[in-house]
Amino acid sequence: MIEFKPIGTIHTPFTELAGMPIQPAGAAGVRGTIDLLDEYRQGLKDLDGFSHIVLLYLFHRSHGYKLEVVPFMDTTPRGLFSTRAPKRPNPIGLSVVQLERIENGIVHIQNVDILDGTPLLDIKPYVPEFDSHTNIRTGWLEQARKTVHKRKADDRFK
Amino acid sequence: MIEFKPIGTIHTPFTELAGMPIQPAGAAGVRGTIDLLDEYRQGLKDLDGFSHIVLLYLFHRSHGYKLEVVPFMDTTPRGLFSTRAPKRPNPIGLSVVQLERIENGIVHIQNVDILDGTPLLDIKPYVPEFDSHTNIRTGWLEQARKTVHKRKADDRFK
Repeated sequence: MIEFKPIGTIHTPFTELAGMPIQPAGAAGVRGTIDLLDEYRQGLKDLDGFSHIVLLYLFHRSHGYKLEVVPFMDTTPRGLFSTRAPKRPNPIGLSVVQLERIENGIVHIQNVDILDGTPLLDIKPYVPEFDSHTNIRTGWLEQARKTVHKRKADDRFK
Repeated sequence: MIEFKPIGTIHTPFTELAGMPIQPAGAAGVRGTIDLLDEYRQGLKDLDGFSHIVLLYLFHRSHGYKLEVVPFMDTTPRGLFSTRAPKRPNPIGLSVVQLERIENGIVHIQNVDILDGTPLLDIKPYVPEFDSHTNIRTGWLEQARKTVHKRKADDRFK
């Protein structure tokens, strides 16, 4: 068993899963804040030079998992690890959001597809040389992924 | 406290931190395998349609953390959350690797910057619409990031 402890809380306008954007691409302009615990704030130094940050967080409202799921972007059951569904053996969420500014230890973010009250596990700087890749194939998502900005969540992964 | 359980183990040629590539960009052609626990293998269905996958894993050889660190790519102390250093409050690693093939439940991967024996926490499909971003600023890394493929780790984050 591995033990982690939240380093802060993410605040957003989304209080329910149903109706949420399913990825940052569908959350253009949605603002949120990260309230980091005081003891970690020194670690935010230099972060404001980055336009985008990677957030790792707990899918705290999703419990249990199935190894095949019908994802939001399809009508066919797919292997869980080929989806971004929140109900996973280790329910860790990953979103790249835009960093607006850091003020009094509060991180203001944009393009947020995250539930209000989400426990934050880590912040990493987004670096194209590390995180952005070309010559990509995306299997069952090949057609659907272009419409992600229009898709909304429902409560199937509650 | 949040409890996670490894879903498998990552095998690579790297048995020591010192001398390792510091990101997948510096690990071109390096091959590894993911040995998923039997109970999760059904979740690999459909994954082979994806050329790249996101791995979340435990930095199992890094212990403790400091809120300011001198990263591999700089000579100045930087706020921890503006770096990808492995010693973090929640030591979760994130790498996008190339998926070669899946055979008998073993996932063969390439461009691997991960230590041998690393406990795997999650696999997600890499999807450019979710994970790739443009109009990026990268703060202190702006100059150095172009040389990431040449940099190697030392043992400072042991």
